[in-house]
Amino acid sequence: MLAAARQLLVREGPGAITHQRVAQEAGVGRATAYRHWPQPDQLLLDAMGGADLPLFKDPSAPIRTWLHRQLRQMADELEVRAVAAMALTLAHSALWDPAIAHRQAESVRTIIERILVATRSAVASGELETEISAVDVAAMLVGPIVYRTTMQQGTVADDLIDRLLDSIGTWRD
Amino acid sequence: MLAAARQLLVREGPGAITHQRVAQEAGVGRATAYRHWPQPDQLLLDAMGGADLPLFKDPSAPIRTWLHRQLRQMADELEVRAVAAMALTLAHSALWDPAIAHRQAESVRTIIERILVATRSAVASGELETEISAVDVAAMLVGPIVYRTTMQQGTVADDLIDRLLDSIGTWRD
Repeated sequence: MLAAARQLLVREGPGAITHQRVAQEAGVGRATAYRHWPQPDQLLLDAMGGADLPLFKDPSAPIRTWLHRQLRQMADELEVRAVAAMALTLAHSALWDPAIAHRQAESVRTIIERILVATRSAVASGELETEISAVDVAAMLVGPIVYRTTMQQGTVADDLIDRLLDSIGTWRD
Repeated sequence: MLAAARQLLVREGPGAITHQRVAQEAGVGRATAYRHWPQPDQLLLDAMGGADLPLFKDPSAPIRTWLHRQLRQMADELEVRAVAAMALTLAHSALWDPAIAHRQAESVRTIIERILVATRSAVASGELETEISAVDVAAMLVGPIVYRTTMQQGTVADDLIDRLLDSIGTWRD
């Protein structure tokens, strides 16, 4: 069931991780899924734990368009209240659970590394001029989207994503 | 004791909210404070609940300098691990506790309103030119600082604060 949940997660995103869909994908009864994960949060948490999330993976030119698409997808996912709840649960659990803390640190590092690969390629092709470090770029792009969806509990307009992209350097066509 | 904790919080910030300081301020023994709040998180949470936090209050010109100071102070507070933990606990508790959710929504709204007052005054004086809404400005300024201190678990350089301020419009001297 866990493998099925991860496949669903990579294919369709966190919104697809329900007991029903996971049971269906794994070819077992729904009751079996409920028995393994009595709390809905835990199912998604376990699924995300070992999954290689597709976010910010494999950049393609033009990088600005690609980054916009990645941030749009992240925002769409976090706008689903269950996903925002899961992100908060994960961050909160990391305070006292070393395994979750390790997993979260790894995922934060992965985002920074992928953003580094993407911005480097944009700088190399002349599409982007920037002196901002990848860790700052990650905070400037991802931070406002996480804050909007979890703390302000609102949606992310494409307009805001454009402003975030504007803020990380000078883009050329 | 709660009143003492809130006075401390407003005067010295969340870092000052320890059992010892609160007991001292209230003129009671430390054991009494521990008896009321067996969990350290809860003491800070209660103290923050009713406090009128000074952050982003009473803007003064030049607004950019003032905003930088406010964001620096917010970052300094969140860099204290207990404060970041409290912020995450508060956000997580809001998922299932309507009273905390209400309190948190109010504090998010207060920040937006205060940022609106500050940016309006900067626009009126000709210091700032911007078309970005206050709710987006709040997400672009506060989001990266919260993300850096809670998720990336790093510190906020003044340099990053300057980049965030650059991102919300065009500043003039």
